[in-house]
Formats: sequence, structure tokens, C-alpha cells
Amino acid sequence: MSNAPSIAGRDVVTLDTFSEEEIRAVIERARGLKADGYSSTMRGRSLAMVFFDPSLRTRASFAIAFSTLGGTVIDLVAGRDLWQLEMREGAVMDDLADEHVRDAARVLSEYADVIAIRALAREGDWAQERRDRVIVSFQKHAQVPIFNMESVLDHPCQAWGDALTLEEEFGELRGRKLTLAWTYHPKARPLAVPHGVSTMACKLGMDLTVCHPEGYTLDARVQQSLQHTAAHSGGSVRTVSSLEEAVSGADVVYGASWGSIDRHGNAEREAALRGKHKDRRLTTQLMSATNGARFMHAMPIRRNVEVDDAVVDAPGSLVVRQAGNRLHIQRALFQEVLGVQ
Amino acid sequence: MSNAPSIAGRDVVTLDTFSEEEIRAVIERARGLKADGYSSTMRGRSLAMVFFDPSLRTRASFAIAFSTLGGTVIDLVAGRDLWQLEMREGAVMDDLADEHVRDAARVLSEYADVIAIRALAREGDWAQERRDRVIVSFQKHAQVPIFNMESVLDHPCQAWGDALTLEEEFGELRGRKLTLAWTYHPKARPLAVPHGVSTMACKLGMDLTVCHPEGYTLDARVQQSLQHTAAHSGGSVRTVSSLEEAVSGADVVYGASWGSIDRHGNAEREAALRGKHKDRRLTTQLMSATNGARFMHAMPIRRNVEVDDAVVDAPGSLVVRQAGNRLHIQRALFQEVLGVQ
Amino acid sequence: MSNAPSIAGRDVVTLDTFSEEEIRAVIERARGLKADGYSSTMRGRSLAMVFFDPSLRTRASFAIAFSTLGGTVIDLVAGRDLWQLEMREGAVMDDLADEHVRDAARVLSEYADVIAIRALAREGDWAQERRDRVIVSFQKHAQVPIFNMESVLDHPCQAWGDALTLEEEFGELRGRKLTLAWTYHPKARPLAVPHGVSTMACKLGMDLTVCHPEGYTLDARVQQSLQHTAAHSGGSVRTVSSLEEAVSGADVVYGASWGSIDRHGNAEREAALRGKHKDRRLTTQLMSATNGARFMHAMPIRRNVEVDDAVVDAPGSLVVRQAGNRLHIQRALFQEVLGVQ
Repeated sequence: MSNAPSIAGRDVVTLDTFSEEEIRAVIERARGLKADGYSSTMRGRSLAMVFFDPSLRTRASFAIAFSTLGGTVIDLVAGRDLWQLEMREGAVMDDLADEHVRDAARVLSEYADVIAIRALAREGDWAQERRDRVIVSFQKHAQVPIFNMESVLDHPCQAWGDALTLEEEFGELRGRKLTLAWTYHPKARPLAVPHGVSTMACKLGMDLTVCHPEGYTLDARVQQSLQHTAAHSGGSVRTVSSLEEAVSGADVVYGASWGSIDRHGNAEREAALRGKHKDRRLTTQLMSATNGARFMHAMPIRRNVEVDDAVVDAPGSLVVRQAGNRLHIQRALFQEVLGVQ
Repeated sequence: MSNAPSIAGRDVVTLDTFSEEEIRAVIERARGLKADGYSSTMRGRSLAMVFFDPSLRTRASFAIAFSTLGGTVIDLVAGRDLWQLEMREGAVMDDLADEHVRDAARVLSEYADVIAIRALAREGDWAQERRDRVIVSFQKHAQVPIFNMESVLDHPCQAWGDALTLEEEFGELRGRKLTLAWTYHPKARPLAVPHGVSTMACKLGMDLTVCHPEGYTLDARVQQSLQHTAAHSGGSVRTVSSLEEAVSGADVVYGASWGSIDRHGNAEREAALRGKHKDRRLTTQLMSATNGARFMHAMPIRRNVEVDDAVVDAPGSLVVRQAGNRLHIQRALFQEVLGVQ
Repeated sequence: MSNAPSIAGRDVVTLDTFSEEEIRAVIERARGLKADGYSSTMRGRSLAMVFFDPSLRTRASFAIAFSTLGGTVIDLVAGRDLWQLEMREGAVMDDLADEHVRDAARVLSEYADVIAIRALAREGDWAQERRDRVIVSFQKHAQVPIFNMESVLDHPCQAWGDALTLEEEFGELRGRKLTLAWTYHPKARPLAVPHGVSTMACKLGMDLTVCHPEGYTLDARVQQSLQHTAAHSGGSVRTVSSLEEAVSGADVVYGASWGSIDRHGNAEREAALRGKHKDRRLTTQLMSATNGARFMHAMPIRRNVEVDDAVVDAPGSLVVRQAGNRLHIQRALFQEVLGVQ
């Protein structure tokens, strides 16, 4: 890897801050590691995982990735293990928060070589929410690299693992057509996966189609970034409303559901809008209009609501491999960020 | 161990699916491991423990057993780390469950080399309950071996560890008299331990006496299995109601309490029946009628309610060693099931 | 370390039971370990952490300390992983408690080489509370060393780590002036840190000033011990009410808040008294009256309520290093107590 760009010491919060070459170098390393078993490159090093929200795939894959490199993992749950954190600089802390994020981040930096954080939406107001205050505050105050295990805005390790899966499947991705298809889900789901996957697709020069009903646009600044990124990588990005149109000729259909940003924090209005689109479900009929597309999804999947069993369980479904590749991409990222040659 | 039967790749859900020879081979290996400390046979391998119900002994002994073999352990708590799981095939998942067990099991199989599950009663109706849906669903969908850390029907690692304890104490068990004695407990306790211990005793050719008041029979199909197993192993099984009669001449008195299957899911009726038997407590007087019997119990113990302090703390009490032997039997099982020579 | 006193096999519950020479020997070993990374002296050994109350710094630093020595750590949460424990000898357990601490402690001793416990106040009545029943019961029944991760009365690993920090900063501590300064906090905080830090200062021959408003004396028997210890070590201990007087000429100002023992268990009366002292806050003005004092605090810190940002973030603030030194002192303690040469 001697000529690969070094990302040692960097935070992994969004793919947007990494170059195409850096992204590909990590994928390359992950492909190498995937064949390997145990290594001891993290011996004597520690990962602190801090969960402000629950997690299965991410908790399991982060913990096992770091441990099977020989490192030590601690699993901290906010509200149980962490005091409630004050985020405002200079605050007079006479209210509910018992500890300032500045202190929590500096202390954890004494114990751990890398801190990984999951913190989803909690503010109600999108303009506030999109500032991703928890992870940004840890980035500001911690003395060690920060990994994003899903924030309001992004889920980079999911997207990076998906890129590994796509490369395994297609080789070169430039010019491949990926359709990100909004599907109905009984709950308003986060935007982190759609943002992360879109960013990844644009970074790697794919032709991205984002398909959703009215009122479900991605974050405006993320959309601007996507346009910019696609222009730079030779990819493209378009938005269409019709699911039939969106999947036509696609190489990959990536199912996802997400809440309406316009109605963020107003559950009733959001549910009323979402409820009009219960028919947005991925079926074998839709898949037959694609270019023999692979099916992808970040899970969990509401089967027969978001997507039919026949699509999830078809030979072209990559969902289980996507989850498995989280392990390998994260092992590669830990090694890259912690400066293992 | 070259001539020992291999159980590599098998699920450990009940002793009923293992031959006497297989059970003895694992005990033999555990006796060997008990002298040893750290080994690295599980290096690079991972155990995912999934708890649908809480646990002390099982959580601690599973985690330490696997870790001190050099492996990585992750501890997942349903409801906190896991989404609510849909178990029905083909379900339209528009209700509470966010993920299908098929997907959860397949994903965990990507991360872990073995999955261990604790899932106790939750249905209310015994005919449904005894199907042990959680563990059976994981067995169906996972790609790696499943360990039962206590289900509705069985607790095989407890029973297997008890067999190690009994062999240490008596050597050959054939013809030894084990009395499983129902005792009063303020709560209706699970049937997994009585089922598991009974199965173990019959597999190893012991003379089993099951003693309980009316209304507290073991599961009907488990009882049929016990008869069949005892006939095959040269052991015997009988049921008596009188505690005095049951312990007379016993080599081992195994205290346990369990709920009434007939009244399963009806807490009030069950408590009314159970409340009539508050006198069912193991005392030194009862123990003096035995053949100098050892006292066993799977813990936790309601002291001076289920059994007197004087019995639990007597020299013939094996309760602490039973708990300790969980560690060694589980280390042996991990090695056997994961194919370590 | 051949001539150092051995503390192998001892419980670490308070510094009061260790000699000055023993305390210094552990600090010496910690200074040596601080430079080192991974070691494998705990390979094959296990630490069971039992939390009756939540924790960040302690959980993280204990787990990482033991793991990076090659050992296995399990993290048990009372109420989730542990049954409710009966503490009374000979109790008829027909009430809420499902397991006797005697059994829990003996079983954990089968699995773990050391048991660490956090159990704060829960009784209401100080005379009962100060008996520290949870940790004392574990000490009585466990077969392995017990570590105190903060009890009602003491927090020895915090204090021992603070001693390491002080020695790094000042070298010889004899004759140095440490002021323990009560500050206002919206909640009645535990007495474990003030007790532990005071004991440490007296053990090491420092001149201790305890400063608090009326009604906030330390525990009477702890105060007697402090006098005795100071007399023996050549240190001194005095109590003053005025914050200005207390900090004058100090080498170290240690900020802390704690509840009124007289009003323990009566939250309303306690809050009423505490509320009169909202002005007890450490400011740069106060610090300027010291002998260029270092600022210490066990965290979490209520910034701008207990102490101003300008003090916490000043160059003379040791708070982050204090937290970091927990790791090193605990690694030294594990090695000493488990008899590593």
C-alpha cells in the first residue's frame, strides 16, 4: 500500500471528506483482509463505542472487527453509562446535563485510541438536527479519531461497505446505474443511509437515480454536494418520482425509506404524507424492468411492506453480503486510520 | 480424542439429540480442560450471545469460557440491541416487528462463528410456548451452530455441566439414584432445568425419580422421551408425589421449582395451586433419609423457602461446583462444536 | 520490586487499610506501566465488574486496564444481569430477593479472578448506609479479591490515581497543602470521593484542609481516621468554613460536592440547606489567592456551577490527567493484587 494516500488520524464521519482514491484504497485493503482471519495489529489499543441510539449490525460488526484485530472494545450506552451531556460552550450547567461533552470526549481520549459514536435525530427541527451536534462536538473535543456509527446526516461505514460489495459484484463501478428507491415503511426512518449511499455512488462515478414521492427530498446541502461530487467524478445524479421510471435499466436497486425533512419533528403530518405512498414496494415485477439489477438494502427490512420476500431472497439480492462486508471495511478503516502499514 | 464421535457443526439445544457416547466424550474433554488455563483455540472466532431474557451465571460463564479460549464475545440484548423480530414466514411486516428473524440470523452468521440464545416463555399458551419459536427460528435460519442458553423447553449446558459434576463425584453414574424434587418458590419458575436434568439423568443410565405435587407434571412429550431414553440407556424413570418417599435412598437430591403447565399463562390460578405446597422445602431431616445424598440446584436459590441453609451449606452440597463446571463444559462444547481437535 | 511489600490477595476497598509504603509501591509500579502498552500478564484471567450504579470513567478505565493486560472482562449490571440480592444471613427468602449475596459471590468467584463492585447509597439512613453492605457482603463471601469501584464510603482507585497525578506533578507530597473544597451542585453528590481523597492526602503526609459550609461534615468515623492517619504520617488535617481562607496558600485545590450526612435520605431538607450555598463556586479570583495551585476534580464537572470554565481549562488543571491515570493505577493494582512479579 506504499503509494496509497494516507488517511491516518482522520475522522470517518462522511465519505464526502475522502477522495475517490482514498475510498478505493480502503476498499482494496478490505478485499485483502476479507480472506484473513485474526491479526494482532490492534493489540494494546482500545475502541470506545458510544451509543446514543440502539444498534445490532453496527454494534456487532464494529466490536468484532476491532476485537479480531487483537484490540479491546468497550461498549458505552448513553443514559446508562454516560451522564447526560451539555453541548453548549460556556453553559452554566445548572440544568439536567451532568457533564460537558468537552470533558467526556477528553476523558475517553485518555482511555481509547478511537471513539465510535451513534447518535440519531433528537431535536425536532431539521435546521438544528442537520448540524449533527453530538458527533461534531466529539470531533471538536476528542484527541483521537472519531468514527461515525450513524449520525443524523450520514452512515459512512454502511456506504463504504456497500462500495466493497458493489466492487466485488461489478468490478469497475463508473457508469453503472444505481437507483436509490424510497419505499413505504410504517415509521419515518433516518436519512443517514440514503445520504451515505448517494454520496458513495457519486464519489465512485456511478449514475445515481434518487426516486421518491413529493416531500421526500434529501437534505438540500447534501443534494448540492452530490451534484458537485458527480460532476467531479464523471458520474451523474438525477431525481425522479416514478418508481417504474427509476428502476428501468438499473444495475442496482437500493431500497430505503426515510422521513420527510419538511415535516421533521411533526410525526402526525409526516405520517399523513407517508401514508399516501403505501404502494411504494419493490416487487419482482419492478425488478424485471431493470438491467437484471442486484437488490441492496441496509437492513432492517420490513418484508412485504418495503420489498417483497421474492426480491429479498432472490439470487441477485446482496443484503446479507452487504452486512457481512461491514466487518471487512471497518477492519480496513481501523488499520488505515490508526496508521497500520 | 481420535475415536470420539464428532459433534462438529451441531446445534446444542437439548441433550436429547446427542448419544450417550457423545455426551460422555464432551464430559471427558471438559475434565481435561478443567486443569488448563488460557488457550487460543478460538482466536479469530466470535461468539454472539443474544439475550431475550436476563442472565448472570449463563452470561458470565459463556463469555468467560469463550474469551479464555482466545475468542471474541459480543453480548446483544433484545429490545436494546436487537429490533423486535418477526418469526412468521411470509408475514406482511406492517405491525410492531422491525426485522425478520431470518435476516437477523443470517446477518449474525456473517459476524459470529457461533450464536448462543436465551429465550424463555412469553406466549401464555403452553402448546405454542413449547414450540420454542425463538431458538427454533434461529436454528432454521442461521448458518452457524446455535447454543441454547436456556429456552422454554431445555437448558442443556446446565444439564451437561451437572453431568460433569456428577461424574466427578460418583464416577460411573449408571444405577445411581437421582431425585428431582419440586420445591415451593414464590414465583412460577421455568421448566427448562427440570427437563434438561431429567434428560441428562436418563441419557446416562441413572434411576430418576421426579417428585412433584399434583398439577406439576413435566411436559408430556418430554416425559415420553424420558421413558424412551431410560429404556435405551438401562436407566429408569418414575414419578412420585411424596417428598419423603422420593428422597428415600437417593444418591442425589436435585432441588428445583417449576410452574404448572396446565395453568401456564394464568398466573392467578397457578399461584393458587402453588400456594398449597409451601411446605415443600428441602430440610436436613429429609436429607437424612437419603443414601448420604449430594444436594444439587441450578440456582438462584430461595434459601429457607426452597431449601434450608443447612442443606445448601452442607459439605454434600454441590451447588457452587455445579456453577463452576458450567465454564468447563462450555469450553469443551465450543471446542467440539467448532471442530477443534 | 523485590523488596516492595506484597498486597497480593488483598481487597482494594479503601486506602485506609494500606500502609503508606504499600500505597507508594503501587504508584511506583503505575509510573512504570504508564510508559508501556499491551502486556499479557492477565492472560487467562477474568475480571467481573458488577454495577449496582452507572459509571463511565470507572467502567471504561477498569475494562481497558484489565483487557490491555491480556485479561477477559465481563460487565454485569444489577437488575439486568443479576437477581435482586438478599444480604441478611439466615433470611427466609420469601420476599423480593431471588438470590443470596453469599451464592452470587461464590459463583462469581468460580468464574472470575477478581470482582469489582460499584454500589452507591440506597438505604436512606446514614447509620445503615455507611455500613456499605453490598461491598462488605461480597468481601465476606467471595473467594477472590474485591475491588471497590465506588461505594457509599470510598472510591479508592480514584484516590490512588489522584496520588499518582500528584506525585507526577510535585514529586514528594509531604508538607504540600491540599484543599478539598465543597462546591455547590444541583444534586446531593456521594461522599466517596471526598472520603477517598482525604484519606489519600493524610496517608501521604499532606496538609489537608477540608472546607465546607455548616452541615456538610465528612462521616464522623472517617474524620477520626483522618486525624489518626495524619498524626502517623506527619501530615495534618483541619476543617474551615470560609472558602477564601481554605484556598489561601494551597498547592492543590480539589473541587468536590457532597450531600449533607445529617439530612441523608431527606432530599427536601438536604436541598434546602444546599440551596443556601449556591455561591460556593471555584473562580479564577479564588485560585489567584493560592500558591499557584493545581486544580483537581474527580468529574463529572458541572461547569460554571461548581467551578468556572476558566479554572477547569487553565494550564494548572489536572482533571483530564487524573482521569487518564485511573487506567495506570488500576493496571498496577491488578498486577499487585493478583501477584504478578
